[in-house]
Amino acid sequence: MQTSSGGARPVVVILGGGFAGLEAARRLAGEAVDVVLVDRQNHHLFQPLLYQVATAGLSAPDIAAPIRRLLHRQRNARVSMAEVVRVEPERRTVILADGELAYDFLIVALGATHSYFGHDQWAERAPGLKTLRDALEIRRRVLMAHEAAEREPNPERRRAWLTFVVVGAGPTGVELAGALAELTRVTVAEDFRNFGPDDSRILLVEAADRILLALPPELAAAGQRQLERLGVEVRLSSPLRDVDAEGVDIAGERIPARTVVWAAGVAASPVVASLGAPVDRQGRAAVQPDLSVAAHPEVFVCGDAASIVGLGGPVPGVAPAAIQAGRTAARNIARDLAGQPRAPFEYVDRGSLATIGRSAAVGTVFGRQFTGFPAWFLWMTVHLMTLVSFRNRVVVLIDWIRAYFTYRRSARIVISAEGDSRSRRATERAG
Amino acid sequence: MQTSSGGARPVVVILGGGFAGLEAARRLAGEAVDVVLVDRQNHHLFQPLLYQVATAGLSAPDIAAPIRRLLHRQRNARVSMAEVVRVEPERRTVILADGELAYDFLIVALGATHSYFGHDQWAERAPGLKTLRDALEIRRRVLMAHEAAEREPNPERRRAWLTFVVVGAGPTGVELAGALAELTRVTVAEDFRNFGPDDSRILLVEAADRILLALPPELAAAGQRQLERLGVEVRLSSPLRDVDAEGVDIAGERIPARTVVWAAGVAASPVVASLGAPVDRQGRAAVQPDLSVAAHPEVFVCGDAASIVGLGGPVPGVAPAAIQAGRTAARNIARDLAGQPRAPFEYVDRGSLATIGRSAAVGTVFGRQFTGFPAWFLWMTVHLMTLVSFRNRVVVLIDWIRAYFTYRRSARIVISAEGDSRSRRATERAG
Repeated sequence: MQTSSGGARPVVVILGGGFAGLEAARRLAGEAVDVVLVDRQNHHLFQPLLYQVATAGLSAPDIAAPIRRLLHRQRNARVSMAEVVRVEPERRTVILADGELAYDFLIVALGATHSYFGHDQWAERAPGLKTLRDALEIRRRVLMAHEAAEREPNPERRRAWLTFVVVGAGPTGVELAGALAELTRVTVAEDFRNFGPDDSRILLVEAADRILLALPPELAAAGQRQLERLGVEVRLSSPLRDVDAEGVDIAGERIPARTVVWAAGVAASPVVASLGAPVDRQGRAAVQPDLSVAAHPEVFVCGDAASIVGLGGPVPGVAPAAIQAGRTAARNIARDLAGQPRAPFEYVDRGSLATIGRSAAVGTVFGRQFTGFPAWFLWMTVHLMTLVSFRNRVVVLIDWIRAYFTYRRSARIVISAEGDSRSRRATERAG
Repeated sequence: MQTSSGGARPVVVILGGGFAGLEAARRLAGEAVDVVLVDRQNHHLFQPLLYQVATAGLSAPDIAAPIRRLLHRQRNARVSMAEVVRVEPERRTVILADGELAYDFLIVALGATHSYFGHDQWAERAPGLKTLRDALEIRRRVLMAHEAAEREPNPERRRAWLTFVVVGAGPTGVELAGALAELTRVTVAEDFRNFGPDDSRILLVEAADRILLALPPELAAAGQRQLERLGVEVRLSSPLRDVDAEGVDIAGERIPARTVVWAAGVAASPVVASLGAPVDRQGRAAVQPDLSVAAHPEVFVCGDAASIVGLGGPVPGVAPAAIQAGRTAARNIARDLAGQPRAPFEYVDRGSLATIGRSAAVGTVFGRQFTGFPAWFLWMTVHLMTLVSFRNRVVVLIDWIRAYFTYRRSARIVISAEGDSRSRRATERAG
């Protein structure tokens, strides 16, 4: 085989060090290939717990691990911290912000980012939750809103500081709303002198007529009851019309609120568009059953960057599906090298769980339905087991046990009272 | 007594929630006063371990605790998150960025910040270490320098990325240099493919003719030997002449280095100048033996904001001295209210320890000298015992045990590859 590097071993470039990319890299450890994993961050992120960083339950390093550390024993793998600009599939080359990389095989696992459905001006007012930086910015806004409320003598304006709106009632929105309710109505409120637990409001705003569309209706209803018990106001059939510095407009109603979080829409990385594959409305590439792109069999797409339809319907954008897809892509490369035919991707759905709060969750595991404490306990066990490193597991377990018994949240720390530079730049632009 | 609030209870305003301010607030718990503690951050910071956050050994919330949480059971205390602009002692009023506060008694415990001896343009190139934001910025620069080195084909330029200069060999500089040596020469280096442990250099640059001026010369010499065993190059009698983007100039020598950290000079908060007290070269207020200001007996100054000369000479700027001063100020207020005469501040020096690395430290405790493992073990015990909350103690202990046996550092996480907004703004200004 003629390799891109001119050397003896084919080069596999993997874009993205999330669940799919990391799994693909690890599965190639025993193969006669050179693996280059490219990510713009230095860390793999355990995204299912990102909402806990945003709501001050965990600290940033608790749910992140350096990608280099995770791959440092794998001698055929290199890690490159770089920003991907686009792919030129005809040249088998990835264009980086400061260079380029030739490949023989490419695995695109760049994940997704928030999408505001054409309302990009909402980004400043309603930040989404995809990176550690996003999580720390949301944490800062939530904690600083309480500080502003403490200093605000006008009751109406204080009320607006204590109203938190989460847009979108998928798993992320539900988890955020539940954790925010615990944070503001239990943990934080008793530390202030000028307002109490009942002065704060959490609204979960959803355009559809129920929450958690991916779960069966009876489980979603149970989840909604658990949310309401925590004090979350759930507004169904309420698409967001507008958001500004003072509040949100939903179907015919104006809600004064100084803190809004976006959990409504995602879109694949714009790099996906350069692959020459058809993309869906969310910018995800359509892939063949073996996860490759029709026009370029040496290019695979995995995780949230791919639109995959399995035997059981569309494959959901969850961590287990991403891991399985990364594994399939790596195995198909190994099969190519061994002269064997490729195998199609088969998604094994072990179930899904959404946590709502202390002792509260809903979901299905191997086809059985769970709610309340058993669901929450399962959720906690599964997430602890799959956290990447032992240290993280122990520290996160300590934090969870402590929070369970004391309602304390250990990471109520605002690194700096100033906002992050992105939002300030956006503010300056907005005047 | 006629109180500022017009109410029955005198108001004690405390500026700063560090060691001195927090201790003063707690000591006033049983008194018939209203306490208002003002800080611009929402957290108390355990500053002696800040260098561990900068060198990726600990995460930010491990060494910080919300001030509100620490005082939430003290019913006579309020916390206000605000920026202090100046004090108007004639009006007994503190001017905040967005309001003002009247007081009957004032305790100024605003601490210190870095001083560049008139070279403020060095701030961008050689950040200091006083806040969590500073620590995360230094961590980002150190970790990103390794990433840049991995991608740099030119050996000379790679060498500059792998050269780290610490300016100032007081306790902070020594601890930083030792931790940086472990981080870059042991923990990190094995994760990279294009350089090894011996390619990186740590320089500790000091203007005086020895390190750790506060310790006896024989202990300082032992400390220097331990640093050199870790691979730190110590340059004595080497005042910094200049620093730019490519390196530093010290007495007749040019050292190409992309990462420089400032641990050389501190100055008291500029607010201190508004108190009407004489200030020393570092901007610290001269105080009476009872820690009050001569012209305003109702104003006390504690911690790094005060220049205190005790019976044993100048009181050092260390945490135990700050705590003791905060206690004295609070007690003297209580004595005023009880109609008793004030007592002078008496500094009890239990000793001081500087850690250098794994199993390495030097210092004196109750007059006895310690070096090596015993000193390090004492240092660890003392710091763990005084960390503010139980959760922090457990988590920090786990991290230390793990680091001791594996050399891993659990917080090797760059939150965002972009620099913090301060430095970017400075860069933009600089063109």
